[in-house]
Amino acid sequence: MTETLPSWRDGAAKQAITDFVTRVCREGSTEFVPQPERIAVFDVDGTLWSEQPFYFQGLFVFERVRVLAGGHPEWETTQPFRAVLENDWPTLGGFGIQALSELVMATHAGMTTFDFARHVEEWLAGARHPTFGRPFTEMVFQPMLELLAHLRANDFKTFIVSGGGIEFIRTFGERVFGVPSEQVVGSSIATRYEVRDGEPVLARLPELDFFDDNEGKPVGINRHIGRRPIAAFGNSDGDFQMLEWTTAGDAPRLGLIVHHDDAEREFAYDRHSAWGHLDRALAEAPARGWTVVSMKNDWNRVFPFEA
Amino acid sequence: MTETLPSWRDGAAKQAITDFVTRVCREGSTEFVPQPERIAVFDVDGTLWSEQPFYFQGLFVFERVRVLAGGHPEWETTQPFRAVLENDWPTLGGFGIQALSELVMATHAGMTTFDFARHVEEWLAGARHPTFGRPFTEMVFQPMLELLAHLRANDFKTFIVSGGGIEFIRTFGERVFGVPSEQVVGSSIATRYEVRDGEPVLARLPELDFFDDNEGKPVGINRHIGRRPIAAFGNSDGDFQMLEWTTAGDAPRLGLIVHHDDAEREFAYDRHSAWGHLDRALAEAPARGWTVVSMKNDWNRVFPFEA
Repeated sequence: MTETLPSWRDGAAKQAITDFVTRVCREGSTEFVPQPERIAVFDVDGTLWSEQPFYFQGLFVFERVRVLAGGHPEWETTQPFRAVLENDWPTLGGFGIQALSELVMATHAGMTTFDFARHVEEWLAGARHPTFGRPFTEMVFQPMLELLAHLRANDFKTFIVSGGGIEFIRTFGERVFGVPSEQVVGSSIATRYEVRDGEPVLARLPELDFFDDNEGKPVGINRHIGRRPIAAFGNSDGDFQMLEWTTAGDAPRLGLIVHHDDAEREFAYDRHSAWGHLDRALAEAPARGWTVVSMKNDWNRVFPFEA
Repeated sequence: MTETLPSWRDGAAKQAITDFVTRVCREGSTEFVPQPERIAVFDVDGTLWSEQPFYFQGLFVFERVRVLAGGHPEWETTQPFRAVLENDWPTLGGFGIQALSELVMATHAGMTTFDFARHVEEWLAGARHPTFGRPFTEMVFQPMLELLAHLRANDFKTFIVSGGGIEFIRTFGERVFGVPSEQVVGSSIATRYEVRDGEPVLARLPELDFFDDNEGKPVGINRHIGRRPIAAFGNSDGDFQMLEWTTAGDAPRLGLIVHHDDAEREFAYDRHSAWGHLDRALAEAPARGWTVVSMKNDWNRVFPFEA
């Protein structure tokens, strides 16, 4: 028999997971949950893979701005594009959501869904993490891959529920996390159906369709899944409402927060980070019965490429 | 060995279905489609169940207007409510989308998702079809239930893609059609996450979120499924774009239209019907390689309750 969750050290976090799964899968017990209701939702950035030094999708946006800059000479003198082209991180960090949204629309809209997926795939194939030197698709957390597998082995359906772009994640969700495209929930821009020279396409429009973060996560879960999950996994205050929605009520529920406290093997940040802010969820976790995972103490391995 | 599709008479329609399934499931063949790509999408009204004398969800709306009328004395003199309360079908039939939308919002918004689901379930439990006298959940097409089962037995994932309300269909989709809530795509109104006395809820708002018909169907498919289906089943011009999107390209694809030509066992209508309009899709079916199913000739049984 193979060990369950081998990259998890024995302790309260691992115990909370295995106990929960055992309880809801025990037939005849009052806590038994039938298979169709075994829905588990996972945030992506900082939960399933790293999100430092910046959301990976943000790095994709910056790279696309550089690729497209030749056709946009005005970007050299126009913000927020200029800051990207000059790698001016302090200036970039000071921009609000409106400026970042301009960058997203300039790189995510104005093409078909097929072309966008191709851009992401090409970027993923060539890009490397700035400090680890690894493809981004290797920057995944081995213990979380094992957790996904453990849940699926117990007849859970695993969903991604990310503030990131749904079409971005779908290009690698199945290959990297074993989550098929129809089980990915995320932020989206609008699309329009068009027939071009007899060929139907979906054109991506520079218009936000849905922002799947904070209060948006329960809304997105309801939109795509249509029932309340029984387990939720996150790492930031953007996941607060998803955990709150999932763990409400008296039945057995699992809420879990990955705490990035491992500066040596990954990164250490929480309350005082500009990105991946974790404050309220961490403070309220004990009272709400949410499990806080210390990457440093609870994981004996962080990345699959570690020995 | 049990017969495949026993309620289908031998003929071109049945042959088109069984041939298609055999071709895409034959390992090693150039036409083989791996399991994750075996996505089939089904319209509901007029395709999986009857839609006459009126969309069943519309009948639910009218019943809710009657139930709620006590709290709205102004409805007795205000259209479109008055026409509903007076069973004035000619007047109702003349209303445009705006008036019908008012009826939908008055009966579908202003409550939590839980309360809405309860309203639908209570209505389904008591309501009867006006001419057949059967619960609406029995007004399903036996040959289509067999088709759903045949596809699933061949590792297809079956999705509902309806112009009707996603939350309406989800209340019975699994029980009646074997389609779980996360595989239902449909029209929706906006929801907002709220915490009421410590209890998180999703409040349904009187605001259209998405209209999943015509050009909306490929958009909804992309939003929820994230990949192009290989088989699509509809019965009206509202399904045209879904079939067009699904069957584009050279690989084996199945597009199928249920033609209501059986006045004796169900209803006969197509081009000249106010509801469930089928014109362009019927005219273009031969050139596009879509299979047209004659309910009268291709089905030896229409409803499960028939002997």
